[in-house]
Amino acid sequence: MSWLPIPTGSHFSIANIPFGIITTAADQTPRPAIAIGDHVLDLRAFGSGGGFSASPKVQERADCFASTTLNAFAALGRPFHQATRSYLQSVLAADTKHPELLKDNQQLREAAVLQRSEVKNHLPLAIGDYTDFYAGKNHAYNVGVMFRGPANALQPNYTHLPVAYHGRASSVVVSGTPIRRPWGQILRPGDTNPTLAPCDKLDLELEMGMFICRENSLGAPVSVNDAEQHIFGYVLMNDWSARDVQAWEYVPLGPFTAKNMGTSISAWVILADALEASKGPGITNDTELLPYLKQDSKDNVLGIDLEVDIITAAGKKTTISRTNSRNLLWSWAQMIAHHTITGCNLRPGDLLGSGTISGTESGTEGSILEQTKGGKIPLKLEGGEERKFIQDGDTLVIRGSFGSGDSIVGFGEVSGTIQAPLPLF
Amino acid sequence: MSWLPIPTGSHFSIANIPFGIITTAADQTPRPAIAIGDHVLDLRAFGSGGGFSASPKVQERADCFASTTLNAFAALGRPFHQATRSYLQSVLAADTKHPELLKDNQQLREAAVLQRSEVKNHLPLAIGDYTDFYAGKNHAYNVGVMFRGPANALQPNYTHLPVAYHGRASSVVVSGTPIRRPWGQILRPGDTNPTLAPCDKLDLELEMGMFICRENSLGAPVSVNDAEQHIFGYVLMNDWSARDVQAWEYVPLGPFTAKNMGTSISAWVILADALEASKGPGITNDTELLPYLKQDSKDNVLGIDLEVDIITAAGKKTTISRTNSRNLLWSWAQMIAHHTITGCNLRPGDLLGSGTISGTESGTEGSILEQTKGGKIPLKLEGGEERKFIQDGDTLVIRGSFGSGDSIVGFGEVSGTIQAPLPLF
Repeated sequence: MSWLPIPTGSHFSIANIPFGIITTAADQTPRPAIAIGDHVLDLRAFGSGGGFSASPKVQERADCFASTTLNAFAALGRPFHQATRSYLQSVLAADTKHPELLKDNQQLREAAVLQRSEVKNHLPLAIGDYTDFYAGKNHAYNVGVMFRGPANALQPNYTHLPVAYHGRASSVVVSGTPIRRPWGQILRPGDTNPTLAPCDKLDLELEMGMFICRENSLGAPVSVNDAEQHIFGYVLMNDWSARDVQAWEYVPLGPFTAKNMGTSISAWVILADALEASKGPGITNDTELLPYLKQDSKDNVLGIDLEVDIITAAGKKTTISRTNSRNLLWSWAQMIAHHTITGCNLRPGDLLGSGTISGTESGTEGSILEQTKGGKIPLKLEGGEERKFIQDGDTLVIRGSFGSGDSIVGFGEVSGTIQAPLPLF
Repeated sequence: MSWLPIPTGSHFSIANIPFGIITTAADQTPRPAIAIGDHVLDLRAFGSGGGFSASPKVQERADCFASTTLNAFAALGRPFHQATRSYLQSVLAADTKHPELLKDNQQLREAAVLQRSEVKNHLPLAIGDYTDFYAGKNHAYNVGVMFRGPANALQPNYTHLPVAYHGRASSVVVSGTPIRRPWGQILRPGDTNPTLAPCDKLDLELEMGMFICRENSLGAPVSVNDAEQHIFGYVLMNDWSARDVQAWEYVPLGPFTAKNMGTSISAWVILADALEASKGPGITNDTELLPYLKQDSKDNVLGIDLEVDIITAAGKKTTISRTNSRNLLWSWAQMIAHHTITGCNLRPGDLLGSGTISGTESGTEGSILEQTKGGKIPLKLEGGEERKFIQDGDTLVIRGSFGSGDSIVGFGEVSGTIQAPLPLF
């Protein structure tokens, strides 16, 4: 398929072409790249070397690949993203019509084609606002039972609108960034006054993230059937959560410090077009929706296979969850339509999270809180250790992909290792 | 006091020296300025003309005044802000030791001293994240009674920690920007299904806003007694709220679309040092606080006199509220300490809101929701009109100041006019 060797099973097949921001030891200026098999193509170097010259449309705006983030590329819109992806696929194809551009251009290959293991990834976009939805109905139900009992697990609004809250944009970090176990205010069982202590119930949240590419003006809602044109692409997300801090602080205005110690995202943004084929029905919603949430198609929820590994400090790996992103009640288009219905302006680089994705069966939950029933039933790990929640030195890894064989469209992974808490002041 | 004529009663006395971003008809590039009486001093022009040459310390970093936002100036830290303010006061003083710099420099005065009425203000800083606290205890109680009844008006956590939630940074606009009445999901009394309709209960929230100047790293909390060094300055804020949308959507994750149609801030940032003298005790908190929230001084809450006017489409003005910013349970330093306790990184340009400021008596409330007891008792306005909530064409104006006579440190105002809703799609 490509003249570059791509291992079978690679997440970064020629069907994918995901975009990220890299640096190398030799050049510390962040710049756009695509991942392809075990390599990356440095798009700044590729552009400088005339790589885009066979596509006048892409060449005309190729200055966006000299930027330190993907925001400029994103803002050019989906037709441009698709043109760029198709062009790069054609350049990388085994039967490329332009071998002189890269395949047979030894000098440019040396400058622009790098080993993926030798580059460092950075946040792909400068994030303006970060919004976290709560579209994983199974998760919302499971957690609602624990926090409020089965009768009030899901609020009356839950099936009428995509519930969401604003998250913290500054604390979003790229995969591989260590996360410090936080101190926080915690109300211990039986106490009437809170304690300041290191979080004792640190958890992951398995989510998908989506980046916005097209701006809408303040006061101008986006219609649900136009919303897809506002989607740049997708990442995996781990919205680390301090459950003990959250339980004490979240009423009445929602989670705040319990989520601000960090949110990890995968490094490579999968373009919206690359995942169109994965779409299908999400969780059935029997509620009659208001017109602004009704989509032309009901098969509009991405279907990404997702897995969560925990790797202990001793190096033992256990896959603790296997699920799929179809376990969402709302499509991204519906989330955009609701986000903007009162006039909120979205901007290129804004990040939206799906909410935690859980299936209905044991071993498909997207949080340890659910897997251990709130810390009551420990997870048994390879090597004999147990976990009620995440311990210092544990590494959590989320992987996600669609397809198989030589045409996988995958995210790679988002990983993070928990560091012991620092002494306070 | 100044060789420039400053009207008695001006909010922008020589004791103030607030910073903002301006453009003029002749020059559309945004640039920093200070307000002084009925004039502004264009700091880019002042710097280009050698205005900072008598202060080596300020001159060395005066390139920050060629920026299109105040972020670079803010990031230089409070000692630099204070040095700049003192220097500008000395240049503007009637007995200035350097009359050749501006007072007697006709050419530079023409280039840099502009009529305030002839400049257009822009957002003073590029806002990274926007957090809204809930520190107005009287407001929290009044609204809690309406939403949850007197027994649950204040949650058990309320006096232990400064409750807050993340707001929407992209929809923060500068004073004077019109606000479009939003459509939104509303559950009408007696209905079981929501309706999509223009907001019928549009309200203001009288708040103070604070901008961050010093960054802390992710994972590194700021101690309460260091927190003042992270404060750049203050603005007035109107956090417009769609009460009917809010009531339906806010459980369990807090307000979302009900607040995203716009948040208005005043144009001139009052430096932290300029308001030190206004500090005193806030609302008494009898709860024993955890050490990270205990401040050396208890007299640490700003005392700003605040007023709210409503001006109808017919041009009739009524002052509907008079209160003071001492009606807060927490100081800004405590809010920063809590915001960062789990490791959240704050960045220069981040905006924090105080929460709605209400006194305990009738006519001191910071929202119409409180004044009309949830829309039950209409406000009687000048000219004979009544209001249960804000109507299309109404202009809401918040003013705030400290001091009197020729040494007022004031904010000017934050105003916004409500526009009729647009048809949907």
